[in-house]
Amino acid sequence: MDVLSVGRGGPHVFVVDLSDPTLDDQDRHHLGRVLRLRDGDDLTLGDGAGRWCRAVYRLSEDPEPVGDVVAVPPSEPAVTVGFALIKGGRPEMVVQKLTELGVDRILPLSADRSVVQWDEAKASAQVERFRRVAREAAMQSRRAWLPTVEGVAAARDVQPAVGVVFAEPGGDPIDGSVRVLLVGPEGGWTDEELIGHPTVGLGPTVLRAETAAISAGTLLTALRDGRVSPPG
Amino acid sequence: MDVLSVGRGGPHVFVVDLSDPTLDDQDRHHLGRVLRLRDGDDLTLGDGAGRWCRAVYRLSEDPEPVGDVVAVPPSEPAVTVGFALIKGGRPEMVVQKLTELGVDRILPLSADRSVVQWDEAKASAQVERFRRVAREAAMQSRRAWLPTVEGVAAARDVQPAVGVVFAEPGGDPIDGSVRVLLVGPEGGWTDEELIGHPTVGLGPTVLRAETAAISAGTLLTALRDGRVSPPG
Repeated sequence: MDVLSVGRGGPHVFVVDLSDPTLDDQDRHHLGRVLRLRDGDDLTLGDGAGRWCRAVYRLSEDPEPVGDVVAVPPSEPAVTVGFALIKGGRPEMVVQKLTELGVDRILPLSADRSVVQWDEAKASAQVERFRRVAREAAMQSRRAWLPTVEGVAAARDVQPAVGVVFAEPGGDPIDGSVRVLLVGPEGGWTDEELIGHPTVGLGPTVLRAETAAISAGTLLTALRDGRVSPPG
Repeated sequence: MDVLSVGRGGPHVFVVDLSDPTLDDQDRHHLGRVLRLRDGDDLTLGDGAGRWCRAVYRLSEDPEPVGDVVAVPPSEPAVTVGFALIKGGRPEMVVQKLTELGVDRILPLSADRSVVQWDEAKASAQVERFRRVAREAAMQSRRAWLPTVEGVAAARDVQPAVGVVFAEPGGDPIDGSVRVLLVGPEGGWTDEELIGHPTVGLGPTVLRAETAAISAGTLLTALRDGRVSPPG
């Protein structure tokens, strides 16, 4: 379970080094000005790679770790959701929700029908933005592990592999073998993109691309965690 | 399956009377100016109560029904998602997503920790707004049935009943008996609100209220439609 085993421990913040924690400027502002923590208040610190500890907030100083560092194993098996970047889409919202839901790896995709075509500089800036959104969402949802946000890849370059499936209306239900689920643009995948890949359906209604991605993350993590089972 | 049994049939629009269809101003604008339909293009008309037919778009006239009216039975059993209205929340987005996912009834709730307290006029205006959002989302997702959007109710007034459960961290997994799933504000339900109600969990991570509601709609409709099973 990729989540802190602590109930009321105050806000959760990622730092680079748990033994010598330094808040970055944005987190310092958030804790002090938005959440209005006071000197001596509880918080938890994590390294985003499974390790966390309790700490005490200090005004105009870095937080003071207290107690032992706890190591949380990553969720097993890791699950990936890919989603096609679309014009007018809300990709930051999708990244935020997938992170909250416990998805381990997030794969922004360019699809034949994506409409958006970013050059390298724009794609790189967007991915940096997605990583900041994922970091904030992982802290807010109290995850011990930061999800991996990959660089933008072309859906056509995804190689067929065991557990890799494309979401497509009329596909089979998701089963327990799916590890990587890719959600297309509203116009759907092209035949070329689907070559060699099994498809799964996300229900009978027509979903917006962003809704399909969140639905995929919900079902994939629920199946992985045993909160639901594949259809009998 | 509450969805049109037609693939490429053009956009789907709700009208009051299928035998004498009249587009409302907003839909007329959307079809003509946004989707840029041309005289003779296909569309489908629905009454939002399970009946639909194919039609032909006419410039500066109402659409012309063609072919038989098809009656789609409602999804069985009907499922309801309730969600607490919160300050700074995105309730329209939640209504939109729940509609796309195939939820049959949507229940906006005021909770003890909702923070927002609307007077009657404001609540009524908001519910009208939610109904417009649900109507648009039902057309976009090609549903034959419009979901019911109830007026704002207090979570404290929800009576314990078979199949009615409150989402709460640490609750049991959702099983096939759940018909009404209520999602609280980020601060959680108060003990008073939970009196007499079973609880279900939506996973180990801490979800934003809006993410919890979408996750609830995804799992409830997937269980209802047999796309996943309760945990074994």
